[in-house]
Amino acid sequence: MAVTIKDVAKKAGVAPSTVSRVIADNPRISLDTKKRVRKAMKDLGYHPNINARNLAVRSSQAIGVIMPSSADKALQNPFFPEVLRGIGSFAHEAEYSLYVSTGGNEEDVYEEVQRMVNGNRVDGIILLYSRIADPVQQFLTEKNFPFVMVGKPSEQESEITYVDNNNFKASKDLTNHLIDIGHRHIAFIGGSTELTVTLDRLNGYKSAIEEAGLPLPNEYTVHAEFLKSGGRDAVEQLFALDEPPTGLVVADDLMSLGVINTLEEIGLSCPEDVSLTSFNNLYLSEITTPPLTTVDIQIYQLGVQSARCLIEKAKNKDEPAKRIIVPYEIKFRQSTKSNTSETLQ
Amino acid sequence: MAVTIKDVAKKAGVAPSTVSRVIADNPRISLDTKKRVRKAMKDLGYHPNINARNLAVRSSQAIGVIMPSSADKALQNPFFPEVLRGIGSFAHEAEYSLYVSTGGNEEDVYEEVQRMVNGNRVDGIILLYSRIADPVQQFLTEKNFPFVMVGKPSEQESEITYVDNNNFKASKDLTNHLIDIGHRHIAFIGGSTELTVTLDRLNGYKSAIEEAGLPLPNEYTVHAEFLKSGGRDAVEQLFALDEPPTGLVVADDLMSLGVINTLEEIGLSCPEDVSLTSFNNLYLSEITTPPLTTVDIQIYQLGVQSARCLIEKAKNKDEPAKRIIVPYEIKFRQSTKSNTSETLQ
Repeated sequence: MAVTIKDVAKKAGVAPSTVSRVIADNPRISLDTKKRVRKAMKDLGYHPNINARNLAVRSSQAIGVIMPSSADKALQNPFFPEVLRGIGSFAHEAEYSLYVSTGGNEEDVYEEVQRMVNGNRVDGIILLYSRIADPVQQFLTEKNFPFVMVGKPSEQESEITYVDNNNFKASKDLTNHLIDIGHRHIAFIGGSTELTVTLDRLNGYKSAIEEAGLPLPNEYTVHAEFLKSGGRDAVEQLFALDEPPTGLVVADDLMSLGVINTLEEIGLSCPEDVSLTSFNNLYLSEITTPPLTTVDIQIYQLGVQSARCLIEKAKNKDEPAKRIIVPYEIKFRQSTKSNTSETLQ
Repeated sequence: MAVTIKDVAKKAGVAPSTVSRVIADNPRISLDTKKRVRKAMKDLGYHPNINARNLAVRSSQAIGVIMPSSADKALQNPFFPEVLRGIGSFAHEAEYSLYVSTGGNEEDVYEEVQRMVNGNRVDGIILLYSRIADPVQQFLTEKNFPFVMVGKPSEQESEITYVDNNNFKASKDLTNHLIDIGHRHIAFIGGSTELTVTLDRLNGYKSAIEEAGLPLPNEYTVHAEFLKSGGRDAVEQLFALDEPPTGLVVADDLMSLGVINTLEEIGLSCPEDVSLTSFNNLYLSEITTPPLTTVDIQIYQLGVQSARCLIEKAKNKDEPAKRIIVPYEIKFRQSTKSNTSETLQ
């Protein structure tokens, strides 16, 4: 039972201090030595006591993954399992475990992050959201604790490493597609305006509308939750207007699903009456009726790249801040249709 | 900065040893004292060093959640985010964090579990699968380490606490429904026969078929992966038979989606040519064409109940082994149709 570092050292033919350094993954130890020591550890069934080890070397070999509050709601959107899958796949290769937040509100999440950091539970943190004036982000910055963001930081000049898509351009492309096929009354349905992803997608939409000289009443931009119920609320607002839109840019596929269901309930059909374009290319976007024209933002890749950047930063605090822009691609499916009536006006 | 246990003790008016016991959540300390000490900790901004604390009290306030190998594939099935959501919600209330496995194969997962247990990283483990002759389960049993299973242990007489549905009966109900509406050639599509959930659902199907005296050729039971691609493989096998089935019992909604797509490709339609019944009531089962008749197994509740049992067990090793059976409900939708041709034979 009581296999010690000394036993491992003897079997591998190295000094006990070398074994400790291998356990701590010290970069000064050659790969060959590491392999030899790790084999000896495995053969002898030696497991370093992780907590004792953490105290010594301050490495937990774990990554904290922070869901937007609340985790409970977020996990209803397939974006999160897919980004977790990407993070997990890279973390697994690098032999890191995942610590996932479960907070129900912003205060909970803030306390969880404090516990992770102050308790040395994780080597670094991935924030799966970017929110303006976020106390979590401020706390991590002040502590100089390694973290990476999926999404764009709210302050442009910040030194934060982040992984994002060009959401402004993607949204402008979607809007221009609707304009190209004859739509003149186009509305935007997004998430909370505190999230930078909403702001980027909103601004891309506005830019296309303004360049085309189309109407942009305030009532045409609606903000709701990134859930099916959010889409429902938005439709109820938009289609009570005197001049309801014929084209929609929706910032999330799950919201789009709610939009389509609610349109049906009020006797409108997609794409015959309303053309819809969407974001994220969740796998559900292929199986809805109709299948959605949506932006493939490569969620899995967002996860992989964020884990890669974080682990680089956790291993080397001097790693420069990076910006990784994962390319997007519009998937054209059956949720849009040419609007011949308005084009003729 | 350097707030110590002594400072907290002074502020709360208790002995330093009491503060340590509160940190360790010792049941002998009264709730009132715990509240007072925790408030003092919060007011002073005191954060116990979790790793040091773990060495002392052997509590990590974390739960290990073990995905079936591979995590990467499992996360493609919406079952897992939904059960994680349930676990996370209960864990959050009880102030536990989640440690999620990322292993790519059975050996990886086994090593991850060893690291979690031997490194005192978690207080207990939830296995999100039940597999026959599982080395992970054997390891945890030998170590007498608290764990709970979602799914039924392969050995009936085991002392393992588990949370499950009555999958045998649910599958028998689905099969009887197909028989009732006139189907005589009914096939079963399940996952790996090493998983007890597959065996239970298979046996429920067989029991109904045998009681009705219907044909049960070996070719009518197909086993594939719990993914869309698994459904595809199964259809290719079943519909190359001389007497293909007119009714299907499919053990997973994601597989069902693959089944329906593949049927369409070979010129068959659901429910006109083939009636399909399914399991899990993933939210996608409502938005497929046609919407699926499927068993709602209450995935979120499976998660909540497993976290509750585990935390009870982690706090008290003498907690008796429990069996929790979460009720199911069949959701009747549009993927089945009466089979008049065969009824007349």
